[in-house]
Amino acid sequence: MKNVAVLGFGTVGSGVVEIICENDFSQKAGEPICVKAILEIREFPDSPYNKLIVNDYEKILNDPEIDIFIETMGGVNPAYPFTKRALENGKSVVTSNKELVSTHGAELLRIAKENGVNYLFEASVGGGIPIIRPISNCLAANEITEIMGILNGTTNYILTQMIKNGETFENALADAQAKGYAERNPAADVEGHDTCRKIAILSALAYGKHIDSTDIKTEGITKITLKDIEYAESVNCVIKLIGSSKKIGDKVYAKVGPLMLPHGHALSEVDGVFNAILVKGSATGDVMFYGKGAGKMPTASAVVADVIDIVKHKGTGAPFWDEGGELIEDSGDNIRLYIRVKAADKQLVESKIDAIFGKVKKIESSNDEAVFITSASKEVELNSGIAKLKVLIGDESILSVIQVLN
Amino acid sequence: MKNVAVLGFGTVGSGVVEIICENDFSQKAGEPICVKAILEIREFPDSPYNKLIVNDYEKILNDPEIDIFIETMGGVNPAYPFTKRALENGKSVVTSNKELVSTHGAELLRIAKENGVNYLFEASVGGGIPIIRPISNCLAANEITEIMGILNGTTNYILTQMIKNGETFENALADAQAKGYAERNPAADVEGHDTCRKIAILSALAYGKHIDSTDIKTEGITKITLKDIEYAESVNCVIKLIGSSKKIGDKVYAKVGPLMLPHGHALSEVDGVFNAILVKGSATGDVMFYGKGAGKMPTASAVVADVIDIVKHKGTGAPFWDEGGELIEDSGDNIRLYIRVKAADKQLVESKIDAIFGKVKKIESSNDEAVFITSASKEVELNSGIAKLKVLIGDESILSVIQVLN
Repeated sequence: MKNVAVLGFGTVGSGVVEIICENDFSQKAGEPICVKAILEIREFPDSPYNKLIVNDYEKILNDPEIDIFIETMGGVNPAYPFTKRALENGKSVVTSNKELVSTHGAELLRIAKENGVNYLFEASVGGGIPIIRPISNCLAANEITEIMGILNGTTNYILTQMIKNGETFENALADAQAKGYAERNPAADVEGHDTCRKIAILSALAYGKHIDSTDIKTEGITKITLKDIEYAESVNCVIKLIGSSKKIGDKVYAKVGPLMLPHGHALSEVDGVFNAILVKGSATGDVMFYGKGAGKMPTASAVVADVIDIVKHKGTGAPFWDEGGELIEDSGDNIRLYIRVKAADKQLVESKIDAIFGKVKKIESSNDEAVFITSASKEVELNSGIAKLKVLIGDESILSVIQVLN
Repeated sequence: MKNVAVLGFGTVGSGVVEIICENDFSQKAGEPICVKAILEIREFPDSPYNKLIVNDYEKILNDPEIDIFIETMGGVNPAYPFTKRALENGKSVVTSNKELVSTHGAELLRIAKENGVNYLFEASVGGGIPIIRPISNCLAANEITEIMGILNGTTNYILTQMIKNGETFENALADAQAKGYAERNPAADVEGHDTCRKIAILSALAYGKHIDSTDIKTEGITKITLKDIEYAESVNCVIKLIGSSKKIGDKVYAKVGPLMLPHGHALSEVDGVFNAILVKGSATGDVMFYGKGAGKMPTASAVVADVIDIVKHKGTGAPFWDEGGELIEDSGDNIRLYIRVKAADKQLVESKIDAIFGKVKKIESSNDEAVFITSASKEVELNSGIAKLKVLIGDESILSVIQVLN
């Protein structure tokens, strides 16, 4: 029998405890799995599992009968020192904590390897969608060259409400909060940080080296308005929050931000709280994984699948990446931008746009705005164009700049 | 170093040899992998790998230096006895052979287990799309209750050509053959047998018991006409060839046939040679896997990933199912049918339809046809309705019957 300890009895942690305690995994795992302790500072007198609660981490760490730690606390502290000490003490650790994996993944994976144990994190990206293991195992015979995904269900729900129901960002956010899809403080989701951590994890795994998520250019969806949604629709596009990365030589280009996708693109029809991740392999071409990216039971089931994997495989075949990945600023690709600007004198503003950007695709717009999509050009040239336009019409006249997928 | 033998130097086999010989998998697998022999009766004087060709299976079987057999011959004979003897001799076997897995999978998996080796077959379903391993490992903490997928790229290409470009079935098939997507004898694809084998494999894996694919109700796409495509479009649907199964108690309901899916359904937008598989888990809800379901390199890369898995994991965690799965005839669900019939006297035929089927949704049609969608009813009742209609208007007047997704 394998005993596990669950660190943190929040949404995911309590789901994990329920799944393990209410199911018999002897056949799937090769031996029974049992929750021996739950680390929590709170008491849960109404929970049947309250008797398992332990307040002192040292007690769990020093229990020789506990083989696997399940960290569902979230955040870097104290999850980081707790995980480190567990691995150093020869315990395998399974986590759903994307912040910790994206920040200290390379170090924790190295410590796990040195101690002959596992550090698994399937639940950190895509909730119940199998994505970490397919990337590290199933695509082993491929070189992965590109990843692109809708990685955050909250923002995708908000954008879907705006696109399908004409809700404003504020109303859609309030609706998402009422439904429990968004936190009271929604910054991590709507500012793109959650997506950023996830693309950092997927990229490290796919390309083999840790990249610093704080260095990834990240923009959220707070500036997207219904007007942008409508203009996008008028050119047969939808706006999605996309985390993407590609391998360029031995470096990585990564980016998080809104992207206009043409209808018909595989990610354009992924709506509501669903996530989808496109992985481009040298042999397989595009492979897509799709499902609910969050939620108590999907995430908890991914955690438990990792636990079963450890019990069954006893520490072989864990995902791994090294330190020292390097990000580059510019992909070097030619990209197109959708730009919306205030235009009291529309004709005048449009003549300036033409002078700066050359041939652009104009989008029919209200009289006080000029809206257009640039030709495909280097990012650096487009940015310099925007800088020039700002000088001519004023910073505050630039209302929206959104990349358009070529 | 691990030596492998490749049985069969056809499309997939030659792809496997290329991938293994042209890449260094020491890091991913933990040790180098080397092709020591290729079993073929043909010679390939222009291939750099011709020197590896061996004509005699016994020579390969008795070579103690060969640990892993890769069977890419296809068909049941001689792949079946070759695989069986390899497993009995303590060799792991990796295959892309869906016919063999769907026919003798349970037995071969049992023999592998008894001999402490692996029998892996990721490439048998979905080409390069990771689906076997995600079902058996990643979803370990879920009960899978339903599977539904577009599992054959050839038929999906043909239907897409009919839907998007108004090609007839015959022209679309000829086009698919010209492009190399369809075999000269296309029966296995267009009659649904390939889809049938794949849903049998996925169902056995998901529900734990072998089911006899020859007992699965299977219909292909040869009877689909452009008229059906147009009528489907007029009610906002597309026609796709779907393999599906669900767990009902400890039995399985499985079916292969054309299905009308509403636009917006996750599988409705999967076009061309792409495959997509929806898996419903008790905890995860719907998870979808999408990608190119065939092709030399995607399929070969899936085979090689299985080989790497064996080298790394040394025989733990292989997928498994038992003998003795039972199919049931009727899902018990209420379903809807699209029915198109000849109607020289339209009013008369429609009055008969009303009398037999009660409330139906009429589809606007040409004067010589009556087209309608039934209300949701038990399959057995609908079939008895069709039988009655046949008596009244003649067998040959029933032009199409296609299930409509509720």
